[in-house]
Amino acid sequence: MKIDNSTKMSILYDFYGQLLTEKQSRIFTLYHDDNYSLSEIGDELDVSKQGVHDALKKAEAALEDFETKLGLIKTSRQNEEIIIKIKALLAKLSARKDMDAEAGSELNKIEENIDKLKNI
Amino acid sequence: MKIDNSTKMSILYDFYGQLLTEKQSRIFTLYHDDNYSLSEIGDELDVSKQGVHDALKKAEAALEDFETKLGLIKTSRQNEEIIIKIKALLAKLSARKDMDAEAGSELNKIEENIDKLKNI
Repeated sequence: MKIDNSTKMSILYDFYGQLLTEKQSRIFTLYHDDNYSLSEIGDELDVSKQGVHDALKKAEAALEDFETKLGLIKTSRQNEEIIIKIKALLAKLSARKDMDAEAGSELNKIEENIDKLKNI
Repeated sequence: MKIDNSTKMSILYDFYGQLLTEKQSRIFTLYHDDNYSLSEIGDELDVSKQGVHDALKKAEAALEDFETKLGLIKTSRQNEEIIIKIKALLAKLSARKDMDAEAGSELNKIEENIDKLKNI
């Protein structure tokens, strides 16, 4: 799947936004979420347009660097694929004619627990 | 489970060590993994004992801060508990007398895929 830069930045921010400084975070969200222009952000925060541009690029680079170092998004995608396989196996088992209600209930509990896993 | 500070720091380093600077990382591992004293690290890196102490505390605080912000260790522990429940449910299903070889094989595949999940 090809994703545009804005979507990519939004995903990076979901995973690593907490690690940005407050100011970086503010500029990042005004630009990427609220669609402010660099000039509008500059007016809002009383910073030059160039200053906003530099802070934004620094924040974006920091987010990319966190992913390079921690790889949470990459791991999350790999885990999502594994979860899809697990759910397909559960569905296959649930569909068996010899599964009674109790076994079906256990399979449902497994699926419920799979859905409780976080950050994966 | 109560864990000592050294174990705690080792776990934090496993999760977030990549985010430390090279120098912080060096001092941290010399102290926590190789059991160097502050003076020995100072001699090794040509830094004062006080400088080593300050850098070490800064690195430790940074690791704690990453966990406060990203919570990967907390999430990992919660996920581990869920995985234990899932495996118990799988074992219960596998132990059923009416499970034939094919169903057993599907359950094994589910468990293999559970074990492939990373960072959880």
